[in-house]
Amino acid sequence: MTERKYRQHYTPRDFDGPCVFCPVIAGQAPADVVHRSERLVAFLDHHPLFLGHVLLVPVQHVQTYDELPADLAGEWLRTGQALQLAVEAAMGADGALLLINNVVSQSVPHVHQHVIPRTGGDGLRFFLGPRRRYEPGEGAEVAARISAELDRAGSLGRA
Amino acid sequence: MTERKYRQHYTPRDFDGPCVFCPVIAGQAPADVVHRSERLVAFLDHHPLFLGHVLLVPVQHVQTYDELPADLAGEWLRTGQALQLAVEAAMGADGALLLINNVVSQSVPHVHQHVIPRTGGDGLRFFLGPRRRYEPGEGAEVAARISAELDRAGSLGRA
Repeated sequence: MTERKYRQHYTPRDFDGPCVFCPVIAGQAPADVVHRSERLVAFLDHHPLFLGHVLLVPVQHVQTYDELPADLAGEWLRTGQALQLAVEAAMGADGALLLINNVVSQSVPHVHQHVIPRTGGDGLRFFLGPRRRYEPGEGAEVAARISAELDRAGSLGRA
Repeated sequence: MTERKYRQHYTPRDFDGPCVFCPVIAGQAPADVVHRSERLVAFLDHHPLFLGHVLLVPVQHVQTYDELPADLAGEWLRTGQALQLAVEAAMGADGALLLINNVVSQSVPHVHQHVIPRTGGDGLRFFLGPRRRYEPGEGAEVAARISAELDRAGSLGRA
């Protein structure tokens, strides 16, 4: 296994620099496209974690998951599910990792869902960062803060 | 940073063992719940990557992302978006990582979307596994295999 020096990407909200995915979506930059509809495009990550690693992106340039339009929900789910199964079948994989980095570790300012084939014993390690359990009472306090933010936003009912 | 010995979880499809999330969903096991609707529940991961790490699960017991019912798409997206923003706000985070492990690295046989607060320089490292770029022509060949699987499944149009 090759361990690389870690470099953390960071895409602040309202980033106004160039987007390397928009030219791919427009067909103006090369990519190995596996699916294209009016609203979604899927293509191979050019630096795959494992071969067959696909990126699913909306045609519309939005940066983060929270900005995906509500009326894209059905096609987003259906396409991600189809890609998951297709990637698993095409690569002879046991399963798949679906992942979206928002802001931190986000390398391109255009929301993209990674669909990564996984096989038992494939050597992928992650979640190696700092990690601790909640102290007594701390979990309830953190949950209350998150619930309060959901209430404040008003988009969902109370827990 | 603490590096842990890596243990890879694995939940085969059609696993018929117990599910630790169903009792949480039914209110029969303790958890720090942050949101509950008729079809979705969100609660704190008891072994968080970072404090405020939430799991979003369907009430219906299904194992993998591809099994989420189509008519849940709207609420799944809307709730994940609201949780993303609430977790970021509650924890003072810059962004969030959304992640679903299917089969490989899946620790509980009930599909769950991780919503993990991220902050610049937070020390999370991942994607440290084996990694290589495509050889010339290999990307096109892999993309064709994935496209063929999408065609075979018939659920989406051609790329």
